[in-house]
Amino acid sequence: NRVQNLKISAIRRLSPYANEAKERGIKVYHLNIGAPDVQVPEEYFDSISNFKDRVLKYAPSPGLDFMREATANYYQSKNINIQKDEVFITNGASEALNFALMTVGNPGDEIITSNPFYSNYKNFFDQLELTMNVFETSEENGFQLPSEEDIEKVISEKSVAILLSNPCNPTGAVYSKDEIQRIVNVAKRYDLYIIADEVYREFVYEGLEYTSFGEIEGIEDRLILLDSISKRFGACGARIGSIASKNKDFLAQINKLCAGRLAVPTLEQYGAAALYSADEEYFKEVNEEYLKRRDTIYEELKKIEGVEVYKSKGAFYVMPTLPIKDAEDFAKWLLTDFNVDGETVMMAPGDGFYYNSDHGKNQVRLAFVLNCEDIKKAMRILALGLKEYQSLER
Amino acid sequence: NRVQNLKISAIRRLSPYANEAKERGIKVYHLNIGAPDVQVPEEYFDSISNFKDRVLKYAPSPGLDFMREATANYYQSKNINIQKDEVFITNGASEALNFALMTVGNPGDEIITSNPFYSNYKNFFDQLELTMNVFETSEENGFQLPSEEDIEKVISEKSVAILLSNPCNPTGAVYSKDEIQRIVNVAKRYDLYIIADEVYREFVYEGLEYTSFGEIEGIEDRLILLDSISKRFGACGARIGSIASKNKDFLAQINKLCAGRLAVPTLEQYGAAALYSADEEYFKEVNEEYLKRRDTIYEELKKIEGVEVYKSKGAFYVMPTLPIKDAEDFAKWLLTDFNVDGETVMMAPGDGFYYNSDHGKNQVRLAFVLNCEDIKKAMRILALGLKEYQSLER
Repeated sequence: NRVQNLKISAIRRLSPYANEAKERGIKVYHLNIGAPDVQVPEEYFDSISNFKDRVLKYAPSPGLDFMREATANYYQSKNINIQKDEVFITNGASEALNFALMTVGNPGDEIITSNPFYSNYKNFFDQLELTMNVFETSEENGFQLPSEEDIEKVISEKSVAILLSNPCNPTGAVYSKDEIQRIVNVAKRYDLYIIADEVYREFVYEGLEYTSFGEIEGIEDRLILLDSISKRFGACGARIGSIASKNKDFLAQINKLCAGRLAVPTLEQYGAAALYSADEEYFKEVNEEYLKRRDTIYEELKKIEGVEVYKSKGAFYVMPTLPIKDAEDFAKWLLTDFNVDGETVMMAPGDGFYYNSDHGKNQVRLAFVLNCEDIKKAMRILALGLKEYQSLER
Repeated sequence: NRVQNLKISAIRRLSPYANEAKERGIKVYHLNIGAPDVQVPEEYFDSISNFKDRVLKYAPSPGLDFMREATANYYQSKNINIQKDEVFITNGASEALNFALMTVGNPGDEIITSNPFYSNYKNFFDQLELTMNVFETSEENGFQLPSEEDIEKVISEKSVAILLSNPCNPTGAVYSKDEIQRIVNVAKRYDLYIIADEVYREFVYEGLEYTSFGEIEGIEDRLILLDSISKRFGACGARIGSIASKNKDFLAQINKLCAGRLAVPTLEQYGAAALYSADEEYFKEVNEEYLKRRDTIYEELKKIEGVEVYKSKGAFYVMPTLPIKDAEDFAKWLLTDFNVDGETVMMAPGDGFYYNSDHGKNQVRLAFVLNCEDIKKAMRILALGLKEYQSLER
């Protein structure tokens, strides 16, 4: 039952239609998924090619020593006090999240998150029979966090943790120190874990100050940090993430889960560790490129009649509101029935990112992970598609 | 709670003592874990080094097309009718097992397996709150399967599947066509899934005929095949496995679980697929080498007074009975208090492979994954260690 009830995430649900479109020779601009088109620094490939051992044993379950150390060093460079032994390497942040949720909650326990939220959260909650409870955020203020009082309203006796992504997938919100402090206050008051999904930490625009939960003192026992190299280095396909905490009992449980699945791939860990010695210039260049993309998608969306949009502050997502009733039907139609000169666009329907809400029905999540020229082309297709779709009166 | 109650598997539980021994300068022969010391065919490394794309997106959740095809082709070469779309690539057979168990059983459901069994099975059962029920096998007949009647005795209304590894980890048993048919009959009679863990398929000795569940007709709807390249190509560190079935509804569920964890590493799939074009000679050489190792460990164990041993027919494990009361204490002592010229041995205590049984208390699982010279040295250390340990009257 726990699998039967699962839904394919909004990000990938329409993939079969995209594949059919491609088979018909249509080019599809993928704005549905946060898979950056930037190159992975050469250090990754070099390190893997330089691996000379021809015997490929299991890596230690918690991760190879140098990879745990590289991750801890990275945290320390961000003023986050995490030591090597407090980091476990995982199969992407996905496994890190799964392990964290399994450890903090029994079936029936409740975990609090923002609405909207990263759609895969729901998948893991359902697998583990955890209940989701949400506080609302809205596009009117760029999806900032509500007041402490509003967050407290959704907490019950069964609540065990608050899960938050910052910068936020899918909204692009970046929470201020004050907003972070609200979560901290509530977590302390109700004795909750804080599960911080900070995989977009490097993607913050216009010099906005970023506050990690890892910088806040006094929550060492309740903080669980999820991380990944997927977005930071454009290395989604490497599937290297991590889970970190200063809570020794929590880490002892994570150690057992790591032992159960034996190990994370050896070569990927060699590649990933080498990424941390990549030039700092890399981040600057990538960040500048994404700022341009953010601005481009914002400007282009603003030009389309009836579309409501705000400026993302971080990550590489934006959730505009479209002048239609059913974004899923529209997104599907773009793949099955529409193209401009043999090209179309794939978007993630917004309602897949909401819990028990009609709110997202006219929203889509767009990932600005293509170059500016392609974003412009994709937005032109979206504008023409909207016009034709509206004339169909579906 | 589901994590709190987990135990670190018998295979890795003593690792901290082994690490301490190494820190004291002691060389440790690892017979505790099935990590082969053979070289991975060069095709794996070549294929990875030849990957020229510098953008590393997520692979499709079910696996890269060519990897699914390589796996299906492999099955077909073994007379097992599995098509490309019926294979999903996983993070090792461990993830394949986890997905299979989560899909066939609700919490509280019961899954049948042999006693002893591969110790990590219990870890996954506990995580998923599945109940284990076991039929007994014993060293007296080399751990062959019991009669249909004896298997039926442990089935209850809550039973949903039979899980079996063949060749068997940890016993080295290889089940005959007749034994396989017993499982098939029982599964049909009680409408159970058969989860077949056949990752040691290539490790069968003395030309013994091997029967895969995949060759049996009439169980297409209930058969789930777990597989991995870890043992076949000595590539444990690649973490590439698969799950295959002809049951469309089951596959639809697996597809959702694959989507939830996004993807399996891209480069590892490139490497793994290339392994299937490795020379057939590779298997012959590896098999001959393991046959020598099997014979060596058997002969050396037979020489030790009080040790009872049988000849493994497959995989690379054997479970001898030692003339002691507490194999875990002895195995730990070998690491903490004993060495021969600065060398000692690490073994997996037998009771970690048994469910509710005192049976394994005087057994150990030995993985004959070292070369014959090292096996001889390790067995000499074991013999001397046994003598000294017995004199201690612990």
